[in-house]
Amino acid sequence: MNLEEKFAYMATGHPYDDLDPKLMKVRENATTMTQRLNTINDPEQRNVLFTQLIGHAGEAPFVEPNFRCEFGRNINVGDHFYANYDCVMLDGAPITIGAHVLFGPKVGLYTSNHLFDPVERRTGGCTARPITIGDDVWLAANVTVLPGVSIGSNVIIGAGSVVTSDIPSNVIAVGNPCHVLREITAADRTGFNGQDFSAGI
Amino acid sequence: MNLEEKFAYMATGHPYDDLDPKLMKVRENATTMTQRLNTINDPEQRNVLFTQLIGHAGEAPFVEPNFRCEFGRNINVGDHFYANYDCVMLDGAPITIGAHVLFGPKVGLYTSNHLFDPVERRTGGCTARPITIGDDVWLAANVTVLPGVSIGSNVIIGAGSVVTSDIPSNVIAVGNPCHVLREITAADRTGFNGQDFSAGI
Amino acid sequence: MNLEEKFAYMATGHPYDDLDPKLMKVRENATTMTQRLNTINDPEQRNVLFTQLIGHAGEAPFVEPNFRCEFGRNINVGDHFYANYDCVMLDGAPITIGAHVLFGPKVGLYTSNHLFDPVERRTGGCTARPITIGDDVWLAANVTVLPGVSIGSNVIIGAGSVVTSDIPSNVIAVGNPCHVLREITAADRTGFNGQDFSAGI
Repeated sequence: MNLEEKFAYMATGHPYDDLDPKLMKVRENATTMTQRLNTINDPEQRNVLFTQLIGHAGEAPFVEPNFRCEFGRNINVGDHFYANYDCVMLDGAPITIGAHVLFGPKVGLYTSNHLFDPVERRTGGCTARPITIGDDVWLAANVTVLPGVSIGSNVIIGAGSVVTSDIPSNVIAVGNPCHVLREITAADRTGFNGQDFSAGI
Repeated sequence: MNLEEKFAYMATGHPYDDLDPKLMKVRENATTMTQRLNTINDPEQRNVLFTQLIGHAGEAPFVEPNFRCEFGRNINVGDHFYANYDCVMLDGAPITIGAHVLFGPKVGLYTSNHLFDPVERRTGGCTARPITIGDDVWLAANVTVLPGVSIGSNVIIGAGSVVTSDIPSNVIAVGNPCHVLREITAADRTGFNGQDFSAGI
Repeated sequence: MNLEEKFAYMATGHPYDDLDPKLMKVRENATTMTQRLNTINDPEQRNVLFTQLIGHAGEAPFVEPNFRCEFGRNINVGDHFYANYDCVMLDGAPITIGAHVLFGPKVGLYTSNHLFDPVERRTGGCTARPITIGDDVWLAANVTVLPGVSIGSNVIIGAGSVVTSDIPSNVIAVGNPCHVLREITAADRTGFNGQDFSAGI
């Protein structure tokens, strides 16, 4: 099968040959492009390259160095996406991110798993399952998201969490494994309206 | 308000506009300076640039690449500070570190939080709270320290810990969330006096 | 003692002077070599440099940038070793890795500890204990392995785990601290035989 068919096949969730030379070439190209991206100091130029590298970027994405990904083409981010330092995304399956999503430093999203049987793993077998993140989500520093996880909208994931299963909307969740801590409510409002001095004092 | 007033305001802990162009400019400059710092192989030259970038460095700081920070000016380290590979500090509020403090690889100190309400977060609202670390503290690899945390003197934080609340002096603390494991006592002495062969054999 | 004797002494597990100028020089050289390695886009050239840097590499190693290590000479990897992005190894004592071992992004192996007593730590005292990993082991993303740990063969360590004690063969282990979750059995086989379409559909 050709490259398009290969990615379509991977998206089905069935085991695939991760050492397929076609894949290796796309992976190597992504590494090369991100290496270049990560040497660019001008944020606008960096974000142009980010937009070219990934499947789809909404308005005004912003990624700090070092951004890393596996293929790029399976990454889709909504408007106003922001990723702080040292973000890694392995996008064997689609990564779909809503609008107004913020990542702290060292966040990792991983859609791909090696197979669990050692003989099958030796032959390059992998499976990939999509990661989906809603709108207005903030993943704090050093959060890890595993294959197949969906995170709702209006969610905060605490620093250092390992998200192994789905997280509903409107909550703060933390820990390894990540679990819901509490709902986000009107009590979380500070009165901030976008301007300094407007709130609190 | 001007930049000095802005940083003073941020240090009060009240919500502030994180997308303020004045801040963005300082942040971009810090990223550019650390990108340069991280390409320097000569440790002495690297540490000169580190000293220029941050608010105050004591005697003989040593940082391995890649060091990252948000602004730099709010970072103050005592004598003989050492940070191993891939240290990240977000210094919206002051980070104050004592003497003889050692960081393992991948340590992250984060003083800044986005606001919890999604509408307020969209408008760029953040709060920052200081992080304070005493003397003779060792943060092992991949430790994350959250906004507002104080760590005493003579403390060891175990690898992979997420420090969400204050840690007293003279203890070993571990875990996510990080909790005190035990006190450090005279039984922890090995007899080492700075020279090989002096202890144990 | 000369450098060979120094490394032999460190391998005994006794406290050693980590600020020894001989060690500092080897460490600085390793940092410089990995800095260069990490700018190379061609994987074959990168892997040549990796093979020169470490003690011994088997057939067909593959490391993604940024690879970091402390000395290099104490790292031994078997055939078909693969390390994804941002792997760090501190090899004050030997790190011995079997065949067909795969690392996800952000994995850290740390053989070295600073001393626990603050006065002894100030003088540069460290101890190092070997890390040993069998064949067919997969460390998922952001796994941290601590000094003295042995991991058997046919093992999967879940993402974000902190491995503080030995892990036997034929298991999946997860968490902080890392603990055995379950055995790997014939039920983990998918039927994959190295070719797409061969399994599942």
